[in-house]
Amino acid sequence: MEEFLSKAKTASRVFNTLSGSAKNRILKEMAEALRANTMDLLEANALDMADGKKNSLTSALMDRLFLDESRVEGMAVAVEEIAGLKEPVGRVLEGWITEDGLKIEKTSIPIGVIGIIYESRPNVTSDTAALCFKSSNVCVLKGGKEAENSNKAIAKVLQAVLERNSLPKELVSLIPDSSREGVNKLIKMDKYVDLIIPRGGAGLIKHVCDNATVSVVKHDKGQCHTYIDRDAKLDNAIAIAINAKVQRPGVCNAMETLLVDSAIAKKALPLLKAEFDKAHTELKGCLNTQSIIEVANATDEDYDTEYLANILNIKVVDGVEGAIEHIVRFTSGHSEAIITEDITTAETFLNAIDAAAVYVNASTRFTDGGAFGFGAEVGISTNKLHARGPMGIEGLTTYKFKIYGSGQTR
Amino acid sequence: MEEFLSKAKTASRVFNTLSGSAKNRILKEMAEALRANTMDLLEANALDMADGKKNSLTSALMDRLFLDESRVEGMAVAVEEIAGLKEPVGRVLEGWITEDGLKIEKTSIPIGVIGIIYESRPNVTSDTAALCFKSSNVCVLKGGKEAENSNKAIAKVLQAVLERNSLPKELVSLIPDSSREGVNKLIKMDKYVDLIIPRGGAGLIKHVCDNATVSVVKHDKGQCHTYIDRDAKLDNAIAIAINAKVQRPGVCNAMETLLVDSAIAKKALPLLKAEFDKAHTELKGCLNTQSIIEVANATDEDYDTEYLANILNIKVVDGVEGAIEHIVRFTSGHSEAIITEDITTAETFLNAIDAAAVYVNASTRFTDGGAFGFGAEVGISTNKLHARGPMGIEGLTTYKFKIYGSGQTR
Repeated sequence: MEEFLSKAKTASRVFNTLSGSAKNRILKEMAEALRANTMDLLEANALDMADGKKNSLTSALMDRLFLDESRVEGMAVAVEEIAGLKEPVGRVLEGWITEDGLKIEKTSIPIGVIGIIYESRPNVTSDTAALCFKSSNVCVLKGGKEAENSNKAIAKVLQAVLERNSLPKELVSLIPDSSREGVNKLIKMDKYVDLIIPRGGAGLIKHVCDNATVSVVKHDKGQCHTYIDRDAKLDNAIAIAINAKVQRPGVCNAMETLLVDSAIAKKALPLLKAEFDKAHTELKGCLNTQSIIEVANATDEDYDTEYLANILNIKVVDGVEGAIEHIVRFTSGHSEAIITEDITTAETFLNAIDAAAVYVNASTRFTDGGAFGFGAEVGISTNKLHARGPMGIEGLTTYKFKIYGSGQTR
Repeated sequence: MEEFLSKAKTASRVFNTLSGSAKNRILKEMAEALRANTMDLLEANALDMADGKKNSLTSALMDRLFLDESRVEGMAVAVEEIAGLKEPVGRVLEGWITEDGLKIEKTSIPIGVIGIIYESRPNVTSDTAALCFKSSNVCVLKGGKEAENSNKAIAKVLQAVLERNSLPKELVSLIPDSSREGVNKLIKMDKYVDLIIPRGGAGLIKHVCDNATVSVVKHDKGQCHTYIDRDAKLDNAIAIAINAKVQRPGVCNAMETLLVDSAIAKKALPLLKAEFDKAHTELKGCLNTQSIIEVANATDEDYDTEYLANILNIKVVDGVEGAIEHIVRFTSGHSEAIITEDITTAETFLNAIDAAAVYVNASTRFTDGGAFGFGAEVGISTNKLHARGPMGIEGLTTYKFKIYGSGQTR
């Protein structure tokens, strides 16, 4: 592993002399190569699908794993779109002349070598490889075991394009040892690896955060809340609550707990229940909720659970302060929303809640790179530092100060 | 420790409702309180000085530890200057309207609870406390054992001002258990602590980075190089080399190794030696250097040593590529300089070297918050992410996205 990572680190230096147009041409070649090798990719994927069937993967997981011609075409298009993004490195983020006459340019640069740990969907392999290549980073990819054949086939296609262009194939690599031990080595190799991005279950993320010596930008769970205040427009509130829960329950920006102001609970809860029943949402609630509508009992454990399913906790709280108390206790720092027409209440909520995205009168479902207008996204960071929330390709860069003098000394 | 940190985390919420002018007024009160309690501070410091004498601290350390009336006045003035900085939280860093009509404001916010581990100088205690307070962060300070009495006295003065203003004294705290075990607990309390900033020796920093589960922004050593290219103005080169080594050898942005292009070594080295001899610099050199001037032998270990003293390694390298090879191997990512009049050579160096600050024709000694124009500085980060290089008070903030909708759903 160490030898491999040392090679990867050295390989990263070729980006110093690779122009943006060369990178874009190579990305387009990669897209073409994915198309041209569709049959190979589907064959490899069929092996994974057969294994998945043998291992009784859920139908949701099987669907995420599955490739067909149109999905491979989608992968190729995504790589082409990434080629079309604005060049992310070499941008002067700030520039000024100091009192000593030094010209300082704070300039965006690649991070270096990035280890990315993820699960299931094979398109993440080509997306991530393309985002890293576009931003002049070497990527070391650790995909899910269940997609191993597909990921290997994809990496092989991309590496063939690199070699055809006389570039080291280490620029886009799968981790050479994909066992837990291999991952444990990777996350401690701070000499060669500059960043680890773990995307996946809570156990994986905690393990990486607890054991990594490399910097980590985590993509953790979304324990998202919506609070309906006494001053909400109730139509808005209901539409937003339904959207936040029901439109796509399996994603991290979906709502898990709905908080309702005690001042309007008697009026709002029956209306909400009627709509959620139509959407076949399974409802749980606090004792106050249960005294108004018929729902199962919600426990503290429920308030702490990211269902990723059409299940919702409802809790009655005393005004915005009650909502803040609950959210401070259970938030994962992803996305939180208040529905209110009162400016002061809205600002109190916006300031008190510490999360990547805090909404007034909108669905938490908007927390994503596309909806934010960032283009292709690396993921949604729940880190507090470096990149927070929807993480565009700029999240794969850092900076250095370039300083131009004419003989200055102190 | 856990109970204390939990209190600190809760205390951080008072900043949500503390205005900038209230913070500035309190900072000015802190400055006045430092002045008013000068005698108490000097008494506590005398205890540390006596202990230091007993423990045979070096005269350099004793000097860093020492307080007198003018140094206390300096601490008070520094706190007043920090009060005068622009409000760092609540700034809208970017703002836009999405295609869905959501108004997004990327807004600077405090990081939360910051643990800062440092050594010796008692003024760091008041500086850091003031910087954290100004940026609405709770600080948990772990100073050096040798300055324990001084630090306790300073913290007591600052906490009295907080309490007089009905604020929780946990906003500015010394770590309750300053043993190694206490530090080990602090750096793993990611539930309550949002950032650890270690400033100090390599051993401390490695220990923190290896064991922390909290995010770390490290202030590591400066293994800084200056490369004199064949196309340098030799006068410039010599003046910059002397300045980078001699003006203040004990700081992290001082040069440790001078690289000289083989094409000009025969001419440049005798001139350099004459100047360094005048400055009483102890010179070590590679075999090629030794064949031209009389110097001791420099080993790989020397090239890897931050002397923090008037000692310099000299190495002859083959052009800018040779310089890059050496620097890539030995850099600590702090500050690196090239002296050349050739644009292409300069840009090759600027692009290839991965360090916080990369200079053309200037001394590495300029890497600091003051020289960069940042005002008061937290330190000089050798992190690659979050804050890199001179770290102004903005380095103590992160951001969230505030999103204003009018009922949007997806």
